[in-house]
Amino acid sequence: MTADIAAAKAALAYLDLDENPISIRAKSRDFFWYSPALKDALDHVVGDFVVTPRNEAEVIEILRVCYAHNVPVTTRGAGTGNYGQAMPLSGGCILHMKAMDNVKEIHPGRVIAEPGCILKDLDAATKAHSGQELRMMSSTYATATIGGFIAGGSGGIGSCKWGALRDLGNIIRLRVVTMEEEPRILEFTGEELARVSHAYGTNGIITEIEMPLAPAYDWTDLFVTFDTFPAAAQFAADLAEQDGILIKVASVFEAPVAHDYFLRVKPHVTPETHLVALAVAPHSMDGFLTFLGRRPEASLLYRSDQENDWKRGPGPIFEYGWNHTTLRALKVDPSITYLQVRYGFPDYMEKIETIRKEFSPEILQHLEVMRESGKVIFAGLTMVKFTTQERLDEIIRRHEEIGALIFNPHRYTLEEGGRQTVDDRQLRFKQEADPKGLLNPGKMISWDDPDWTFDGMYSYPKIQSPA
Amino acid sequence: MTADIAAAKAALAYLDLDENPISIRAKSRDFFWYSPALKDALDHVVGDFVVTPRNEAEVIEILRVCYAHNVPVTTRGAGTGNYGQAMPLSGGCILHMKAMDNVKEIHPGRVIAEPGCILKDLDAATKAHSGQELRMMSSTYATATIGGFIAGGSGGIGSCKWGALRDLGNIIRLRVVTMEEEPRILEFTGEELARVSHAYGTNGIITEIEMPLAPAYDWTDLFVTFDTFPAAAQFAADLAEQDGILIKVASVFEAPVAHDYFLRVKPHVTPETHLVALAVAPHSMDGFLTFLGRRPEASLLYRSDQENDWKRGPGPIFEYGWNHTTLRALKVDPSITYLQVRYGFPDYMEKIETIRKEFSPEILQHLEVMRESGKVIFAGLTMVKFTTQERLDEIIRRHEEIGALIFNPHRYTLEEGGRQTVDDRQLRFKQEADPKGLLNPGKMISWDDPDWTFDGMYSYPKIQSPA
Repeated sequence: MTADIAAAKAALAYLDLDENPISIRAKSRDFFWYSPALKDALDHVVGDFVVTPRNEAEVIEILRVCYAHNVPVTTRGAGTGNYGQAMPLSGGCILHMKAMDNVKEIHPGRVIAEPGCILKDLDAATKAHSGQELRMMSSTYATATIGGFIAGGSGGIGSCKWGALRDLGNIIRLRVVTMEEEPRILEFTGEELARVSHAYGTNGIITEIEMPLAPAYDWTDLFVTFDTFPAAAQFAADLAEQDGILIKVASVFEAPVAHDYFLRVKPHVTPETHLVALAVAPHSMDGFLTFLGRRPEASLLYRSDQENDWKRGPGPIFEYGWNHTTLRALKVDPSITYLQVRYGFPDYMEKIETIRKEFSPEILQHLEVMRESGKVIFAGLTMVKFTTQERLDEIIRRHEEIGALIFNPHRYTLEEGGRQTVDDRQLRFKQEADPKGLLNPGKMISWDDPDWTFDGMYSYPKIQSPA
Repeated sequence: MTADIAAAKAALAYLDLDENPISIRAKSRDFFWYSPALKDALDHVVGDFVVTPRNEAEVIEILRVCYAHNVPVTTRGAGTGNYGQAMPLSGGCILHMKAMDNVKEIHPGRVIAEPGCILKDLDAATKAHSGQELRMMSSTYATATIGGFIAGGSGGIGSCKWGALRDLGNIIRLRVVTMEEEPRILEFTGEELARVSHAYGTNGIITEIEMPLAPAYDWTDLFVTFDTFPAAAQFAADLAEQDGILIKVASVFEAPVAHDYFLRVKPHVTPETHLVALAVAPHSMDGFLTFLGRRPEASLLYRSDQENDWKRGPGPIFEYGWNHTTLRALKVDPSITYLQVRYGFPDYMEKIETIRKEFSPEILQHLEVMRESGKVIFAGLTMVKFTTQERLDEIIRRHEEIGALIFNPHRYTLEEGGRQTVDDRQLRFKQEADPKGLLNPGKMISWDDPDWTFDGMYSYPKIQSPA
């Protein structure tokens, strides 16, 4: 089964086809370089051409042509993912979804949109229409697409209230095109959503998305400071447990993160300052200030709804949290990398303090409040001063030993970035929807090597050789 | 200090003053008769006159006049409370708030209204204005006022998501008139709200209310049936823990409540049917149906968003829950009364089953899902087949023994209906705002008898004698 790139290009020449090598290279990459391991493994990866469909009919045509010519197809939105999920390990066609960005319908509590719509634009449309916004968004909200968020993300800003994208009710419907001789269009709701959400485009191409909406408010951005880290983390968790106070994000940063990596915050804190960043609904501010007043250990550093003496404002608070924290740290110290950890209910504080005692400041805690099965928990996007892969593996092992769940961001496969088990629903759907295995090859281990044991990093055997 | 009723009436004659004995008696009563104990204690209680202010200036004038003439003032809204809180134990003035029913301002996330506004009318206004509704309401929504809900209630429909009225953020601001020689107007937010919310009008008259709003949806009403009670209760709790599925109420009824007391449901169930009543947001229905599909023990009996074969529809689902359950039971069996129980996190199922094993069917479980400090818990509005006060006391004792908190609905004082402790904030504010003790006399034990030990039912010494 050899890919006939030239034939595919010829057949697709009437579409928006990009053959400029510089542009192709740019569109072959995501934010994989957050990870030194992925940087080594994927830096040379490049597609053969980029095609940008304007509608579902063109998606169908592209898949039909690529199927006929055995050309791999790797789908991407804005490429803001961190796991190489949008990178064409076997080359071939980069299916760029940016032109399919229509917001089709807005109703009370839900929106129907095309996958290439940028999160920020989607929110602007729903806000203008009826004062609504997405329940959840990535910290790359200003550039990321809704399709990329669903195919490659798991939650983010808003997860402190609504849980993860995979939780029931957080995606309503997905419309998907299969990669077959004659591509089919399928509509998924309920249990079937798990087949294609967070599947990196390995088993179908999402062409329409129906998402729940929440009311949009002019969220008040806040920074609160603490002398100790446990006080900061407990404050964030306790605030999130206030059922009557509406928050959108609660991020916790161990000292000296705020001082060393948040340049606009630096003049207002010391290296010993532990920081909590929050977005609170305006009509919850009285409740929040009452909660704050009960906590003498907490000092209000900044609120966006009042005048302040900051020479340069901090910008949107959500751009401090989730993976923007890592990005800010990387800009100051390129040796920083990160881990994704889940500190579950109820003993999250014990686990976090165990890790802190053993590893701080080699690793610095960055926590995000989440909801899981009705409980407040913490997602950790732990910052690690990278030395060697062996040391990183040792740190990961220690987390797993104490029961802190690791979702490894130094791997490019679905299984390794998740719970390191095969998702049968996704595999079975790939068998049905992508019989030739042409969609985003190398990202689903269970397709290529069902017996993989997860003892070490999976390396896709058919990955392009470095030039 | 003798009340000069005649002088007060003369001074207030230019206002909307009601002196018709039949009307005065009707407006001197609430739904106290749910409790046989309160029925015995309060049935004879009656005010001397009713006055209905049209605005805050008139409230001030009424209080000034009543203060001057030592006339007790008992404030009421629609009189849908169940604890005699709106009943004038010492006679005097009934301050009827129904004419102060303006909705003054509506903003994203909040509304400002007068206390006499009926909950249903308030919701209609906020819905028409911007698709918003109150976070919480009583099951007497169609007739109860917002002021009465705040002064006499503690939560209700919506508490499965937002917690209780007393929780931070669930009331934004209250404007209050004091009972002094020259009444003052005070504005309360934050910690100070606790002074007058749920105070039965004993220490100030609420004249303006600012409440948070949530988005209004065309909630889907649902009944789900189960063969066992624990399965029904677990289903409701687990559903409430689905962070991505938006619900407004989840009520659980032990068999044979649905069959015996819910007349329109009766044809569709058996005496062995345990029932869960739910309101789910339309855009969460796919998520809900997915959740339901994972629970073979659950059978969907009714959904309001589809055609069905019910000859008579069940009416709004929320009118099955909270104290409407008791009302429905009372209409069929007048010997029924009830208890208010709090089954806390995490061992609520064990406690509930302990009580069930010992007392069912003498008492039947009726549970309401609530949120408390970020956890799903159950409020019990337990139905009791009343025999004697001694037996009721025994049942209450047994609940307390196993750690199920009782809020006694067979008492007419603030303290006994709550946690049986003095609320210093309310007492101190009464000392300041009602120095003569004229506001709703007999309802705050700590004012009349600071040494009360809560061993038996408090009986206000100055209560009117039965005629």
